[in-house]
Amino acid sequence: MKKEKPVILVVNDDGIDAPGIKALIDMMKPLGKVVVVAPDSPQSGMGHAITIGKPLRLTQVHLYEGVEMYKTSGTPVDCVKLAVHKVLKGKKPDLCVSGINHGLNNSINVIYSGTMSAAMEGAIESIPSIGFSLDDFGYDADFSPLTEFVQNITRQVIANGLPVGTLLNVNFPKTDQIKGIKICRQANAKWAEEFDERQDPYKRSYYWLTGVFQNNDQGQDTDVWALEHGYASVVPVQFDLTAHHAIPLLNTWNFDVHEG
Amino acid sequence: MKKEKPVILVVNDDGIDAPGIKALIDMMKPLGKVVVVAPDSPQSGMGHAITIGKPLRLTQVHLYEGVEMYKTSGTPVDCVKLAVHKVLKGKKPDLCVSGINHGLNNSINVIYSGTMSAAMEGAIESIPSIGFSLDDFGYDADFSPLTEFVQNITRQVIANGLPVGTLLNVNFPKTDQIKGIKICRQANAKWAEEFDERQDPYKRSYYWLTGVFQNNDQGQDTDVWALEHGYASVVPVQFDLTAHHAIPLLNTWNFDVHEG
Repeated sequence: MKKEKPVILVVNDDGIDAPGIKALIDMMKPLGKVVVVAPDSPQSGMGHAITIGKPLRLTQVHLYEGVEMYKTSGTPVDCVKLAVHKVLKGKKPDLCVSGINHGLNNSINVIYSGTMSAAMEGAIESIPSIGFSLDDFGYDADFSPLTEFVQNITRQVIANGLPVGTLLNVNFPKTDQIKGIKICRQANAKWAEEFDERQDPYKRSYYWLTGVFQNNDQGQDTDVWALEHGYASVVPVQFDLTAHHAIPLLNTWNFDVHEG
Repeated sequence: MKKEKPVILVVNDDGIDAPGIKALIDMMKPLGKVVVVAPDSPQSGMGHAITIGKPLRLTQVHLYEGVEMYKTSGTPVDCVKLAVHKVLKGKKPDLCVSGINHGLNNSINVIYSGTMSAAMEGAIESIPSIGFSLDDFGYDADFSPLTEFVQNITRQVIANGLPVGTLLNVNFPKTDQIKGIKICRQANAKWAEEFDERQDPYKRSYYWLTGVFQNNDQGQDTDVWALEHGYASVVPVQFDLTAHHAIPLLNTWNFDVHEG
């Protein structure tokens, strides 16, 4: 008896018409039955936002032959919730893949990224989940050098599953000569923010958020190092944010409010 | 010589006019020089969203006597960035406190919460940071039983700092008889989502996100347990999301794309 093809949920944050999600859909087609739920407009930088102050729209669309597709008015995280609970009617997909993001989500970017938050929502739903990103913001970014890597990582996750409470954050350098894959930790880096101040026609100030990526981590086991040296980085990510190592120290503090 | 008062940045996600931030401002006034930067409208559920597709507004307001206050058009995370880089001109505050949130941010809610994401942004900026939340969504919630606890925790953080890369997630039960403070880990709980489907006057469907909080964790060292038993919960939180324990396993996988 032939085993049923795995159901693969594809989501993203750049929107349903982004070239990155088209590339990911094409890469997933040989591996399973693809269902797509994606935002109807770009949602970069949305982090783990959800929509609670207004209602959500969910509309079936027919963009690519043979693929069940929906667009939503929600955030990337809303897309996963709507996919699981409305589109798939509570039957969980075998896999959730997010991306391919136009731009890196390595290091601290994992926290700001809609792509990675969608994958994290998949993991919270106990679905093996992976986020994919490429170091190229361009609309005409070339995703083809990633194909074998994306498919191989996906096959491994389908075959092996992932440890409970974890997902994968996969980033690719911009090159057609990817050297291989490195398993990494999240580099200790941050954005050095700047605000570009301008004046509107009514002489009132407004600000554009800009910034410079600042790596403070010289480790050779980080995602930043791997990408700088031509490798794809794979970071296992968890949604238990507890700093377990800090608990013993805090237990030595005096929290007695009735003293002194 | 008298030591200078610490500069305390107060932010939130419920908006600059929320009773919770007024309560927190009043609690912080005896402890330092208070500067407030908060959203001009409610931003609950915004997670770690930042504003990159449109410009930001930042406007000084005069709501409470003797307090420097600004409202912004941005997210809670934007508020911290604007506070540090525009309002304080790059001079970091000695402390960042966020809240007091109208509603709990314990367990998995830390990930969806604008309150906690603002505190996390403070921590990413290397500012000792604390998020405070109360189990009461009401506009007329009574924050007064929290005063001593909030001030005591804040004094401890000012005196001791926090371990590198960590912040505190503090949640209070709805009672005027808080039993004390428990240092906890994040409970393994999640939202069982439901979508309330309705039809607009044009017969098109729309959806409201609703859900039931589902605790799958019987541990007595969790924030859910503490709150259910009348204690305030303090969870140390980190922004290194690496699942370090999963790295050895992933290193055993075969990622060779040229094989087979």
